[in-house]
Amino acid sequence: MTVYNFSAGPAMLPPAVMQEAQQEFLDWQQQGASVMEISHRSAPFLALMQQAEHDVRALLNVPHDYDVLFMHGGARGQFAAIAQNFLGDGGQALYLQSGLWSTMAADEAKRFAEVVTMDMVQTCSKTHIKQVVLPALTADLGDFRYVHYCPNETLEGLSIDDELDSPWPVIADMTSCLFERPLNISQFGLIYAGAQKNIGIAGFALVIVRRDMLQLPPLPVASIMDYRITAAHHSIYNTPTTYAVYLAAKIFQWMLAQGGLAYFADVNQRKAELVYAAIDTSLCYRNQVATTHRSRMNVTFQLTDPRQQSAFLAAAEKAGLKALTGHRLVGGCRASMYNAMPLEGAEALVDLMRHFAQTNPTEPVA
Amino acid sequence: MTVYNFSAGPAMLPPAVMQEAQQEFLDWQQQGASVMEISHRSAPFLALMQQAEHDVRALLNVPHDYDVLFMHGGARGQFAAIAQNFLGDGGQALYLQSGLWSTMAADEAKRFAEVVTMDMVQTCSKTHIKQVVLPALTADLGDFRYVHYCPNETLEGLSIDDELDSPWPVIADMTSCLFERPLNISQFGLIYAGAQKNIGIAGFALVIVRRDMLQLPPLPVASIMDYRITAAHHSIYNTPTTYAVYLAAKIFQWMLAQGGLAYFADVNQRKAELVYAAIDTSLCYRNQVATTHRSRMNVTFQLTDPRQQSAFLAAAEKAGLKALTGHRLVGGCRASMYNAMPLEGAEALVDLMRHFAQTNPTEPVA
Repeated sequence: MTVYNFSAGPAMLPPAVMQEAQQEFLDWQQQGASVMEISHRSAPFLALMQQAEHDVRALLNVPHDYDVLFMHGGARGQFAAIAQNFLGDGGQALYLQSGLWSTMAADEAKRFAEVVTMDMVQTCSKTHIKQVVLPALTADLGDFRYVHYCPNETLEGLSIDDELDSPWPVIADMTSCLFERPLNISQFGLIYAGAQKNIGIAGFALVIVRRDMLQLPPLPVASIMDYRITAAHHSIYNTPTTYAVYLAAKIFQWMLAQGGLAYFADVNQRKAELVYAAIDTSLCYRNQVATTHRSRMNVTFQLTDPRQQSAFLAAAEKAGLKALTGHRLVGGCRASMYNAMPLEGAEALVDLMRHFAQTNPTEPVA
Repeated sequence: MTVYNFSAGPAMLPPAVMQEAQQEFLDWQQQGASVMEISHRSAPFLALMQQAEHDVRALLNVPHDYDVLFMHGGARGQFAAIAQNFLGDGGQALYLQSGLWSTMAADEAKRFAEVVTMDMVQTCSKTHIKQVVLPALTADLGDFRYVHYCPNETLEGLSIDDELDSPWPVIADMTSCLFERPLNISQFGLIYAGAQKNIGIAGFALVIVRRDMLQLPPLPVASIMDYRITAAHHSIYNTPTTYAVYLAAKIFQWMLAQGGLAYFADVNQRKAELVYAAIDTSLCYRNQVATTHRSRMNVTFQLTDPRQQSAFLAAAEKAGLKALTGHRLVGGCRASMYNAMPLEGAEALVDLMRHFAQTNPTEPVA
């Protein structure tokens, strides 16, 4: 039985990459040792890091005035690092909130500095459908060092594709959507992503920062979380999480070999359309995000009759469709379909959903 | 040819552990997925983390009033975290310096608070031999929240086995010596170690902290570096570096199966004695640390005739003895022999050293 792993992260990795990594697990590049067992300052590992940065730049078409950094910790570490690196000398920031992660980012920044928040989501009291309303970002709102938002809320399955029109540098938590599709990097002052979704395994955050941002005055910050130090040392100020970087480097190569982000944008769109169609054409399931802002990476849905949920999840598990349980804070179901999830995984999920709906019919609501 | 990897870290891992990890690389515990691809909050991974903590407690006989934490980043992250967690409200700390890493720890703490330093090493101007002189730590030195030192200086190959007699809590950077031998944990307020030596691969730091230390007033600190938050969430406040924790858990089991730290203390002692004997009985090599404070984990030595060094390192490489080059800041040679290095590795190094000395005789210095 083919297993499809819909985990939100740590998440499914490309099977071809995993097989290659398994083959060279004990002996990498004729070193007589694993890549995990050699110095991060050895020539082969430095070459690997250079290639990884080069491939990130190629995949995302990163402009030359941006640094690409591999940093310790995941996105939560960056929630703090952003405030610590940019909010010295009484600086303030604006945080746009659209769900759990953008709210957490604001809460973390409040540990260090003054933060202004604005809600971007309106929920209909009758249908519970969430709409995103972009605020007008005008200079009279305040003197902000940056505006922060989360273009893909993993937990709610809510995506904001719109470019923000902002008088301040835009910082985006792209943990669950970086490498989903081509991106106009130049609209951002800084973007970041925890690695355990499209990039690889848990253990680092990828940061892409416009170099002029590093002129902003910092608060006291740990050297390993300091963008200036990390950039000056090409991400090896201290020992990076070498195995996580190694796997990410392989995944960047795999993404390029598949055809780059134009290829993934197409497949990701098709996977999401398949599953949303299965939701929208059945009385058995519902999704509560306005169609204009539905996430392609994280498709959330509920069983219309909540008593059917555990039976649905059990049927999915039995069919080899794993980790479809929604986030513990919101319940329901969630199908996370990052780049490693093939179209066949989405098709298998849709088959299961249709079969379950046929054998467990839901009465129309009066 | 058997390869022995003397890298200072990331370092050699136990072959038995690596073979097991390779076998279950694609499918862990019949999950149909790698351990890297599943949620850190899933039942199997939570069980793994509990077992890892249990095994750390068993190996080191950790008292019940200590927390065991798995934190992001390596020891350099802890350099900052210690100051940020304990030096709020104008707190000061005393840093004892015995080499590069204890000095770096003090420098990092100075980013956040006032730090007093004391040098513990005296170097003879004629022989260049380093002696460690423990200072009398008396309350009249100052009102310190803690005293920090590094019991094993990886770069210099200098070890301090003495227990400190201190009126303040003792914090020790044990990155390169934790799990070397049994330890009296109750003498410490906090110990920490980057994982890439005796514990496993780069990606986290192990912290063992006496719970009453968490009452000390903190400075603003990133949540992922906050000991209180990490302890309250059992090291999964955010996604840990799951694969590094998984490998560490296997290595803890392997250490227990070998006979625990009493076994390793014996083997580590024998390995070090072999190599130091080869140094001390040959005119070709010299070590510049007083015999009472020579490191068992990191044996440093120079060729008496520095012109022979590159030939020696080339001969070692050819014999499958890898990564014997000393740290880039001090040069010379260094044989790091953590728990994963078998006695046979030390024997192979000694054979090479004797053979090289015979074929490249050094003239006695007049």
